[in-house]
Amino acid sequence: MKHLLSTEDLSLANAIRILDTAEEMAAVGDREVKKLPALRGRTVVNLFFEDSTRTRISFEAAAKRLSADVINFAAKGSSVSKGESLKDTAQTLAAMGADAVVIRHWASGAPHRLAATDWIDAAVINAGDGTHEHPTQALLDAFTMRRHWSKLAGSASTGADLKGMRVAIAGDVLHSRVARSNVWLLRTLGADVTLVAPPTLLPIGVEHWPCKVSYNMDDTLAQGVDAVMMLRVQGERMNASFFPSTREYSRRWGFDDNRLRALDSLGLKDTIIMHPGPMNRGLEISSAAADSPRSTVLAQVRNGVSVRMATLYLLLSGDTREPAASAGAATNTVRTNTAHTNAARSNAAHSTKESN
Amino acid sequence: MKHLLSTEDLSLANAIRILDTAEEMAAVGDREVKKLPALRGRTVVNLFFEDSTRTRISFEAAAKRLSADVINFAAKGSSVSKGESLKDTAQTLAAMGADAVVIRHWASGAPHRLAATDWIDAAVINAGDGTHEHPTQALLDAFTMRRHWSKLAGSASTGADLKGMRVAIAGDVLHSRVARSNVWLLRTLGADVTLVAPPTLLPIGVEHWPCKVSYNMDDTLAQGVDAVMMLRVQGERMNASFFPSTREYSRRWGFDDNRLRALDSLGLKDTIIMHPGPMNRGLEISSAAADSPRSTVLAQVRNGVSVRMATLYLLLSGDTREPAASAGAATNTVRTNTAHTNAARSNAAHSTKESN
Amino acid sequence: MKHLLSTEDLSLANAIRILDTAEEMAAVGDREVKKLPALRGRTVVNLFFEDSTRTRISFEAAAKRLSADVINFAAKGSSVSKGESLKDTAQTLAAMGADAVVIRHWASGAPHRLAATDWIDAAVINAGDGTHEHPTQALLDAFTMRRHWSKLAGSASTGADLKGMRVAIAGDVLHSRVARSNVWLLRTLGADVTLVAPPTLLPIGVEHWPCKVSYNMDDTLAQGVDAVMMLRVQGERMNASFFPSTREYSRRWGFDDNRLRALDSLGLKDTIIMHPGPMNRGLEISSAAADSPRSTVLAQVRNGVSVRMATLYLLLSGDTREPAASAGAATNTVRTNTAHTNAARSNAAHSTKESN
Repeated sequence: MKHLLSTEDLSLANAIRILDTAEEMAAVGDREVKKLPALRGRTVVNLFFEDSTRTRISFEAAAKRLSADVINFAAKGSSVSKGESLKDTAQTLAAMGADAVVIRHWASGAPHRLAATDWIDAAVINAGDGTHEHPTQALLDAFTMRRHWSKLAGSASTGADLKGMRVAIAGDVLHSRVARSNVWLLRTLGADVTLVAPPTLLPIGVEHWPCKVSYNMDDTLAQGVDAVMMLRVQGERMNASFFPSTREYSRRWGFDDNRLRALDSLGLKDTIIMHPGPMNRGLEISSAAADSPRSTVLAQVRNGVSVRMATLYLLLSGDTREPAASAGAATNTVRTNTAHTNAARSNAAHSTKESN
Repeated sequence: MKHLLSTEDLSLANAIRILDTAEEMAAVGDREVKKLPALRGRTVVNLFFEDSTRTRISFEAAAKRLSADVINFAAKGSSVSKGESLKDTAQTLAAMGADAVVIRHWASGAPHRLAATDWIDAAVINAGDGTHEHPTQALLDAFTMRRHWSKLAGSASTGADLKGMRVAIAGDVLHSRVARSNVWLLRTLGADVTLVAPPTLLPIGVEHWPCKVSYNMDDTLAQGVDAVMMLRVQGERMNASFFPSTREYSRRWGFDDNRLRALDSLGLKDTIIMHPGPMNRGLEISSAAADSPRSTVLAQVRNGVSVRMATLYLLLSGDTREPAASAGAATNTVRTNTAHTNAARSNAAHSTKESN
Repeated sequence: MKHLLSTEDLSLANAIRILDTAEEMAAVGDREVKKLPALRGRTVVNLFFEDSTRTRISFEAAAKRLSADVINFAAKGSSVSKGESLKDTAQTLAAMGADAVVIRHWASGAPHRLAATDWIDAAVINAGDGTHEHPTQALLDAFTMRRHWSKLAGSASTGADLKGMRVAIAGDVLHSRVARSNVWLLRTLGADVTLVAPPTLLPIGVEHWPCKVSYNMDDTLAQGVDAVMMLRVQGERMNASFFPSTREYSRRWGFDDNRLRALDSLGLKDTIIMHPGPMNRGLEISSAAADSPRSTVLAQVRNGVSVRMATLYLLLSGDTREPAASAGAATNTVRTNTAHTNAARSNAAHSTKESN
């Protein structure tokens, strides 16, 4: 691994390696001094062509906890706004000594252009490109799920995949790089994914994605689900014609109080509710759901720092070998370990292969 | 002390403890290497919902001098502008590992909401909320006065309060969080405070504040005063109807050249002129006053870093016990020590208790 | 040296000292840990009244590589926009403990005002003022040229000047602080400079500058040149009436593909093409030229960090003595060392003094 551009082309072995390294990084948070000297003298540039304080800060905290120097570059008011090309901007940063460029761009594919060319030597990390991918978000989501299910199973997270876990991703899939990155990564990790959205908020070609599609939130819940991931309604990206009224959206596609109660009636006592943030409370998620014990919203934020530390560490600390081929074979499966904890799960026929 | 939200509820013992710790921090500035390792591995987030480069930089310099990592979060263009609630923003920062959140907010009471709830574990420091409070500003003002008067008295600052010192706070009290925080803290430290302002720039209920009110600047000076604190005219907050012409304001309420000369005629040779900055030269303060040896404007800025270092240190370094009850009893009084240095002071009958 | 304000008043000895120190700093880039502890505990403030992400980042990277703390102060939305004077802003920063103030200002002369007064103790570094000077840009350009020619000559860069080297500076000289700073520094270092520009883009009084002026790019190339420095067309500063059409500008004054080929025909095989960035590709420089092996664009960016490290180090590390007078006498001359490498150079009669 030299870059982290997408989850679509991330191998199982590399995904597991990032998740396992993130477990080690999470342990740093419990130490008296929360800094590691691992990346001292390295420079991480946050190159943001779109505002995203939340993602920028998470990377900044991750890099600083590894003792790297961080330089923030917001494209607004910069030479970019004077018409400089992405290539020239990137090469300039690399020439100044950037070891990693964390890039957020409004154009799908921009991080790939940086990495696929010989423009720069620095590691490129995609922090969200257009409606395409947001791989560290998917990794932190997977990390959060894996921790939750390992804990239920009373087993170690390390090495485990998500085989057989049932994940629903609901809402504005059309504009969501979070949805895309999750679909690919969850497929690789072995989970069963269902997209739940109105037809107008699904992308063309979704039938070729490695997941099911549903137009009915309540049916999807009734069939049993281990995690429900609510997507942010991105008003700023959305054409008004796609969008029913707020009230209508909330009733049909939001995770509201009724659905929160439904999880109990359905016997889905361990099902978690996820959201990448920032939340539109009362729109795609109700406050009761967001603040319930099922909500992993804050755990996701916390895990985001660990996953980004792991990514920076793996890309910059020198060891960029592919993990041994056997790593995949050694993968644990949390799903089967936790099967007995979730009654509704027997509805679904999942692999019960247990490699550990 | 877990948070620093206001001076209204700051005990004398805690106020003295912050001021005394700030004395130690000021000494760091004289060392060859001006950094202390005290907060290595801690993260301080500057969460600014209003622009205030001056305050933000002061906290940033303070945190870095203690080896903390600093992350700046300007609400503009952030998820906040996408409608995220204060609660969600704060919890997100805490989840990312913020040990302290320094918050500047346009809404009075916002820092209290953060701290009074169980939203976050991090220490909350109020860096100015609406027209309510700005406690570190008041502390740096008190620190500046204490140093000045201790020096005059030839005694140590440490442990001293401001008993009997006469402070005039003049100008736009209505919109000034600086005035409010100073009134409460100076009361706690034993000073006699007089607000000097036109009736239209005084808040409703000011008669219940622990201070005197005057509508005449020259009368106030004539009665003897040890410090005159000029408030910034905040054009951006002010309704035009409150505001006389610039020239009229300057003549009646500003500290102009005539008043500067008057201090000499009145025999007030040790009286200092304070201003929190940024100054409107020629409006609430003349350039001659701002640049005179009586001016403590730059000392206030310098002391601001020391006071903020002390605050961060006390809140984050682990020792959050209340100081022993005896601390209050051990308080020195600088006023009496310096009484002989100021002829005009004999006009006023002040406590002459001397505990040192 | 206490400040770095301009190249016009930079002595040869000090120029050589900065360039030589930059060579040492460049070597830090090759180390495993790229940080030096030299400026630990020092604070560098980037005080930018104009956006310039590129320059700000370069100084920030330089300061951090020397372990200084960096505080960024963008004047927008700061107390400056509330009407604070430059003096008050500067004194405020100094009072907060700034050891160096790196200032970019839209007004020519602003850095000199800071330094010439007794406003502040901090070292002042001019990072570009109006249309006046940009001394670190000229120093990094000189550093780039010196390295190139020393390498050609197979000699060490250290101590060398640029005696007899022929440099053409082409384009919008009128608005270019880069051009001004280069003209003065190159004169001091002994190079022969020709400005190439349309009469409307030359400043009044250019005939008194220590350089030649040409209105014809091709003639200048034909007479032999060791470096061609293309200036950025600054659309944002330029009055439309000065400016021919884009196509016309490119054809007459740009370094286009024809001119790139011409260098070969003219036997100028070692001539380099320089640009301070950001480039307007297709306007003042073609992509083929910008990306050719002759282009030093990225080397200039890389060297910028080394030169700024050297500047910060020399101004802040305590040794501010003028170098011994003999330093100038010991200066090497790269030009003569490399004369045999460039056939076209025999056209020009240059000093052949060789002091090494």
